[in-house]
Amino acid sequence: MTKTLKGIAASDGIAVAPAYLLVEPDLTYTKTTISDVDSELARYKKAIEVSTAEVEQIRDSAKKSLGEDEAQVFEAHLMILNDPEFTGAIENEIKEQKINSEAALDETAQKFITIFEGMTDNAYMQQRAADVRDVSKRIMAHLLNKELPNPASIDHEVIVVAHDLTPSDTAQLNKKFVKGFVTDIGGRTAHSAIMARSLELPAVVGTDSITKDVTNGQNLVVDGLNGDAVIEPTDEQVADYKKKSDAFLKQKAEWEKLKNEPSVTADGKKFTIAANIGTPNDMAGVNANGAEAVGLYRTEFLYMDSKDFPTEEDQFEAYKEVIEGMHGKQVIIRTMDIGGDKHLDYWDLPEEMNPFLGVRAIRLSLQNEEIFRTQLRALLRASAFGKLGIMFPMIGTLAELRKAKSILAEEKDKLTKKGVKVGENLEVGMMIEVPAAAVLADQFAKEVDFFSIGTNDLIQYTMAADRGNDNVSYLYQPANPSVLRLIKHTIDAAHENGIWCGMCGEAAGDNTMFPILLSMGLDEYSMSATSILRIRSLMKKLNTEDIKELANKACFVSETAEENEKLVDELMKKVNN
Amino acid sequence: MTKTLKGIAASDGIAVAPAYLLVEPDLTYTKTTISDVDSELARYKKAIEVSTAEVEQIRDSAKKSLGEDEAQVFEAHLMILNDPEFTGAIENEIKEQKINSEAALDETAQKFITIFEGMTDNAYMQQRAADVRDVSKRIMAHLLNKELPNPASIDHEVIVVAHDLTPSDTAQLNKKFVKGFVTDIGGRTAHSAIMARSLELPAVVGTDSITKDVTNGQNLVVDGLNGDAVIEPTDEQVADYKKKSDAFLKQKAEWEKLKNEPSVTADGKKFTIAANIGTPNDMAGVNANGAEAVGLYRTEFLYMDSKDFPTEEDQFEAYKEVIEGMHGKQVIIRTMDIGGDKHLDYWDLPEEMNPFLGVRAIRLSLQNEEIFRTQLRALLRASAFGKLGIMFPMIGTLAELRKAKSILAEEKDKLTKKGVKVGENLEVGMMIEVPAAAVLADQFAKEVDFFSIGTNDLIQYTMAADRGNDNVSYLYQPANPSVLRLIKHTIDAAHENGIWCGMCGEAAGDNTMFPILLSMGLDEYSMSATSILRIRSLMKKLNTEDIKELANKACFVSETAEENEKLVDELMKKVNN
Repeated sequence: MTKTLKGIAASDGIAVAPAYLLVEPDLTYTKTTISDVDSELARYKKAIEVSTAEVEQIRDSAKKSLGEDEAQVFEAHLMILNDPEFTGAIENEIKEQKINSEAALDETAQKFITIFEGMTDNAYMQQRAADVRDVSKRIMAHLLNKELPNPASIDHEVIVVAHDLTPSDTAQLNKKFVKGFVTDIGGRTAHSAIMARSLELPAVVGTDSITKDVTNGQNLVVDGLNGDAVIEPTDEQVADYKKKSDAFLKQKAEWEKLKNEPSVTADGKKFTIAANIGTPNDMAGVNANGAEAVGLYRTEFLYMDSKDFPTEEDQFEAYKEVIEGMHGKQVIIRTMDIGGDKHLDYWDLPEEMNPFLGVRAIRLSLQNEEIFRTQLRALLRASAFGKLGIMFPMIGTLAELRKAKSILAEEKDKLTKKGVKVGENLEVGMMIEVPAAAVLADQFAKEVDFFSIGTNDLIQYTMAADRGNDNVSYLYQPANPSVLRLIKHTIDAAHENGIWCGMCGEAAGDNTMFPILLSMGLDEYSMSATSILRIRSLMKKLNTEDIKELANKACFVSETAEENEKLVDELMKKVNN
Repeated sequence: MTKTLKGIAASDGIAVAPAYLLVEPDLTYTKTTISDVDSELARYKKAIEVSTAEVEQIRDSAKKSLGEDEAQVFEAHLMILNDPEFTGAIENEIKEQKINSEAALDETAQKFITIFEGMTDNAYMQQRAADVRDVSKRIMAHLLNKELPNPASIDHEVIVVAHDLTPSDTAQLNKKFVKGFVTDIGGRTAHSAIMARSLELPAVVGTDSITKDVTNGQNLVVDGLNGDAVIEPTDEQVADYKKKSDAFLKQKAEWEKLKNEPSVTADGKKFTIAANIGTPNDMAGVNANGAEAVGLYRTEFLYMDSKDFPTEEDQFEAYKEVIEGMHGKQVIIRTMDIGGDKHLDYWDLPEEMNPFLGVRAIRLSLQNEEIFRTQLRALLRASAFGKLGIMFPMIGTLAELRKAKSILAEEKDKLTKKGVKVGENLEVGMMIEVPAAAVLADQFAKEVDFFSIGTNDLIQYTMAADRGNDNVSYLYQPANPSVLRLIKHTIDAAHENGIWCGMCGEAAGDNTMFPILLSMGLDEYSMSATSILRIRSLMKKLNTEDIKELANKACFVSETAEENEKLVDELMKKVNN
């Protein structure tokens, strides 16, 4: 039976393929005492055997599809499966306690995990704990006759269906065969959505129930343009979607032609369209889409993808790679934005009632100066290799900005005294994302080289609505006049003080927000690389003289976000005629 | 040994008395098997006997000090102690399972609690679960030879020391003998701080370690003027504090004379000083301190102090009592502000990652219209008995305001059609506490009769700093120029549109903030009743002509909260000379 689920359009494009459920089965068990030890041991050994064969197969296909490095983890799993200390301990439990294999496995694995996790200063042993957990899960699944998803072994085209996609899930996916994502939860700023856009895969998130509604292998349409997921589409629907997809691909090809064009308006005004990136790996997409700068390099992924704090050297290499990859174009690197919804396994921070209103980003850096100084040294050293801007996130008061700048100046001084070269055209800027900073932008503008407006946070604080909370998503309004007034005030304050102002939130690449921002004279628009050509094409259609009044109307005449959406709709109708 | 702890001055005044620790002892136990059942049973029966005698004594003293109603709960405890179903079940466990009394008690009590709590639609049985929990705790304490605090039996002057004080703790205190509070955690807006101010007791909160540093009965000074707690003060210190206390009481007596005076500045300008209240019981303090209005009645306490949603009739009675108690002076009643940090036992709302950025206050009301309509009907009916203002909290968009107003209009219409009388001079207003509302105050001002600025929330959202999180308390800055600009914009917008603007956050009664707010022309200042005379006295000293420039300086010249604190300090030095 055909069924259509409505979700949030998270990444452009359309795909049709069988569903692949990345959902963990229920692995709970009942502890029982056994009478026939021999047959229980046989059952246990069988599970080890099958698990071993399975991991070997996954390892082989991972090697082929993902590469040697990514396949390493499965070698570690095999070592555990062959480790007599581990498997023998379980056998002994079965024999001596006369308990079923599930209980023996679980209790033994817990002991190993506790010991390994106890070695908190040893990242290697911490990883062993994770490996034991993964292996035990696999053995347990075989004991219970349940099927575990094996994303690394996907060898045909699929649409991945999950409750939510974590970074470690996506790391294991064979991207060659994944044609799209559909998830139960999340919004446009969820990890799964950002990942889909960076992979240029269509994605629909927040469908609520896709993991319950679809079964493995059922045919599935993901329409990332409208936010629809269609389970078991009719032939007619598939044909319609094919047509729609063709039209989208044709438009994409048109945009493609703008790759090496400058970003100019219809009346020849030049602006900068830049890319947001998370890791040096994203540079291919940045250059493929003709970005004129990197407007935001989110360094927290360097910390999140690591088993311990990245060293100064590790950071230096990553920053240098990105800076050199831009061949003289500017790269804005934001110091780490940990805290809020981003946590590190190896950094035990206090639990907070409202993490988005807690110790995050620059607050955490200023409270942990050594970690901050390490990052700043790596940035300063990398600045010699191109044009760098260092940007501080979540600045709320001048005291914070001044403190961050003075620490940076100290580290710069120490390096130059040691004879280490630091870039001469290094700029220092700040995010405008705390409402206090937007309100006082005229004062902040005197003390930095540039602003970059972070709309994701600015909106959530201005509207007092958690951007991850579905129950208040109706209040998360980029085009609300209050948000637009704060943005306009920030841009005006920047220009009055002779500095440039960019934006690196989702709004910069949004079709509705873009004409309003252009009318305000925003200088730099930083977005997912895959949005660049669409926005460059849109910019080409707009004449700054014609939209001169749009900003004031949107800020001071309109009373709601809906009115502003209508304003832009009407404008675009005129422009497109 | 004398020891001084630095905390937060939460309620004015000074007191010296022995410490009374309201701290629960560790009641964990080890489950053991027993061989001598008879002696274990004797031990158990002894604990029941001692517990019974103790509860009888607490009941008797509670009757005397708190009244019959408050002592009722102890009758219920005695019934459980005498209930053969309960005590017999424990005895059976000891006999049959041969386990120690602690384990038998705990396991039996858990069974009873689970059954009672399972009856979720029966408030009576829910209360029985709480009673079983309390009684078990007492028996357990006797089994383990630990001492439980018995706040209801306090019969001599004490200073209550606690980690934190909950509403149910304070309900059991015999206020006649409690001379002050000192706590480990909390800030000026914590429940314990608000309670202390409403009882006019000196309080110091946030000392971090008072419960560890002081023992029961040690002499303790609480200096609520400076935020100090002194353990085992020297005779000299006690004498000094006595002098300081006398000076404070003398000043209070001076303030007392202003009780029936109007609130006017040195140059004869008239403003309104109003009181914030939580329940009709607070009316005595409101009138004793000469409030000219109730600027904020927090109706959520009506919901929080109840075992189920308060009926329309219950609410009507409470609102009417307050309105009539003000004899024609205005009463601003805020519709319920549940959610965020305020929860109801009987209303199971989804857990939120960031409750302060979630579904709270008007958002919750609009998503649960029937509950909202019940409250509005009670308010409309009560409005006939005096001068009422209905105020909506946490309004962020015009859509929300319009929706709330239309629901109110519908209920008013239905009532008047039924012939129910509704007050003719009823005003409808809104809190300004979401930054978006402050930024768009000029638009909101056209659709309400008044504003009341809620600084506690406005500051936390503007600075993106949870007001309950000690690790970001340095960012919670009432005098930050960004906050002041939003306040000034709100007041100006109100006046340009011919409506009045009040403030009901802590800032209105703050010595530093008050002169700045007066300079901005804020019309109404609503605060804890005990702050009213202090602020009226301060107002009398200030000349609006002399402080005309203060607001602009504080908003546009100053760059930090500290500069503004200095500005006011200097002003007050001049004024006091």
